[in-house]
Amino acid sequence: MPVRVFVLGFGKVGRWLVRLLLEEYRDRFHLLGVTSSKGTVLAEGPADRAVLARLAKGARSLSEHHSFIPGLLAPDSVLATRPDMVLVAIPPSYRTGEPNTSMYKSFIEAGIGIVTADKTVLALHFEEIVSLAAESGVPLGFRATVAAGTPVLDVASALRWRGVSRVRAVLNATTNYVLGLLERGLTLDDAVRRSIEAGLAEPDPSIDLEGWDAAAKLTILANVLGIPARLDEVERRPLSEALGRARGGGRLKQVAYLDAEKGILRVSPEIVSPGDPLARAEGEGNVVVFGLEDDEIVVEGPAGPAWRTARVMIADALDLAGKTVSMVPRVSL
Amino acid sequence: MPVRVFVLGFGKVGRWLVRLLLEEYRDRFHLLGVTSSKGTVLAEGPADRAVLARLAKGARSLSEHHSFIPGLLAPDSVLATRPDMVLVAIPPSYRTGEPNTSMYKSFIEAGIGIVTADKTVLALHFEEIVSLAAESGVPLGFRATVAAGTPVLDVASALRWRGVSRVRAVLNATTNYVLGLLERGLTLDDAVRRSIEAGLAEPDPSIDLEGWDAAAKLTILANVLGIPARLDEVERRPLSEALGRARGGGRLKQVAYLDAEKGILRVSPEIVSPGDPLARAEGEGNVVVFGLEDDEIVVEGPAGPAWRTARVMIADALDLAGKTVSMVPRVSL
Repeated sequence: MPVRVFVLGFGKVGRWLVRLLLEEYRDRFHLLGVTSSKGTVLAEGPADRAVLARLAKGARSLSEHHSFIPGLLAPDSVLATRPDMVLVAIPPSYRTGEPNTSMYKSFIEAGIGIVTADKTVLALHFEEIVSLAAESGVPLGFRATVAAGTPVLDVASALRWRGVSRVRAVLNATTNYVLGLLERGLTLDDAVRRSIEAGLAEPDPSIDLEGWDAAAKLTILANVLGIPARLDEVERRPLSEALGRARGGGRLKQVAYLDAEKGILRVSPEIVSPGDPLARAEGEGNVVVFGLEDDEIVVEGPAGPAWRTARVMIADALDLAGKTVSMVPRVSL
Repeated sequence: MPVRVFVLGFGKVGRWLVRLLLEEYRDRFHLLGVTSSKGTVLAEGPADRAVLARLAKGARSLSEHHSFIPGLLAPDSVLATRPDMVLVAIPPSYRTGEPNTSMYKSFIEAGIGIVTADKTVLALHFEEIVSLAAESGVPLGFRATVAAGTPVLDVASALRWRGVSRVRAVLNATTNYVLGLLERGLTLDDAVRRSIEAGLAEPDPSIDLEGWDAAAKLTILANVLGIPARLDEVERRPLSEALGRARGGGRLKQVAYLDAEKGILRVSPEIVSPGDPLARAEGEGNVVVFGLEDDEIVVEGPAGPAWRTARVMIADALDLAGKTVSMVPRVSL
């Protein structure tokens, strides 16, 4: 039985989800519809699906679809079609978490599983949302929120009872790129301009450069490790602080740091020595170092971009929909 | 409510389990008893537990306990006390998997959860045992079987739907040690003798040197990735083949290799280049490189020894006993 899914969002990740669901994974999933910020397409017949797939491959708006229903927005579109699972790829909301958080709650109340790439709801309300999902028996998949292509949350979950005392991580691809250019002598302004031209920076570059993105990921990582944390508890130092230090030797990286004993959560530019695993993070590469007792566990791999994030969300959905053996479940409350 | 557990085995790992259960984790667990290869101690009162803890800290036999019942062996001892969970730290059985496999089956039939450090049953009968546990709704934790201290199985599980095509890994600490000595010019015989003196080699050194240990770990890793495999399908080349090549440049490592497309499973000594992540594996360190599409995901961290293996088993037991949210369950069948 295919899993009945609904896609929220028709940006880069949403488009990749639609392509994968309608083509490579069409035997496993039944796509009920897609909602953008302007309206909804319900994928009721083969022609609807064919046109959706075509729109998803380009950059054209969902509103160009012949079955587009303007003004039918989430959560109403999702609640009306009652999928098994909703795949959430909508813009983040770092300040308030809204309207995303309210939407999650309405899906959970309706018994609709959630697979999300949006970091902000969990970074602001981890315990509330996870508890609500648990109590309602609703599956919630969020591997795509941290380092997408690399399962660092699975590692964090496995280390939950092992007493992780420190985490050091490079979690943001855009700052990898910008800092690489600073190392090569560009000014910060020029480096940021180049990263926007390369399509890397968020529409609001402060999300990357001032550490919002990395702080949200660090917050989720902390919670999965069993350390309660909220986004607003993370100290964020902007990349501009790195300027005077760019030539101090070693590599310049935006480091997300957690010290469980001292209660420190911080994202700041740092010079890391060449032998430090964090020095190996380049481009889309993420590196996370978990410190426990005298040990270090290092996980390295790719994060985004959109196609990889979408594939990770599909993997979450397949796991959650499968007949599963909870060998070692992921989060205990 | 504490989890009622029984410990099977009173070797290095079994002793650490008893210490941790009776001391650091005494509020979370109730230890019902311990069975060695000669008999059983039922931990019925405070005096029983105090003496057990004392024996566990030394090297003395379980038979010195005042409540030792000679001849009461597993699985009877476990079935008689009906714990929530049995922690299995008995010797491996690479050739037939017995008596271990039959014991697992009797525990599953009795609804007793299993947390195990024994690789051999799963390397020989992964699908059968996992299916049986799933159908019976019995939890089965086996993080300790591969790279114990480092959750590589959690990573493998997360990558199950992502199309991993290759795995390259260093998974055996003893061969790390022996090959390090070869690199420094010792003969194989001398290096093996030293590793036995250091307490590293298994009683039967061929288990490490001829690749049985790494092959069993590779088999479990493959199955968790969704690639059915059996221990006897792994091609094993003994470490002695490395002798003529020890000075060819790079580092000498015992590499476990999986190629999903070509159907290759192999453990063999190899020269790895200095820039290869596998070259970083030293001593107890394990390194696993997962290859998918054009990406590599690298996980590095410590494996055993006994104290770490015991801690990982405790973590499995806590996860399995907890009220859990199956965010992303671990194995789908």
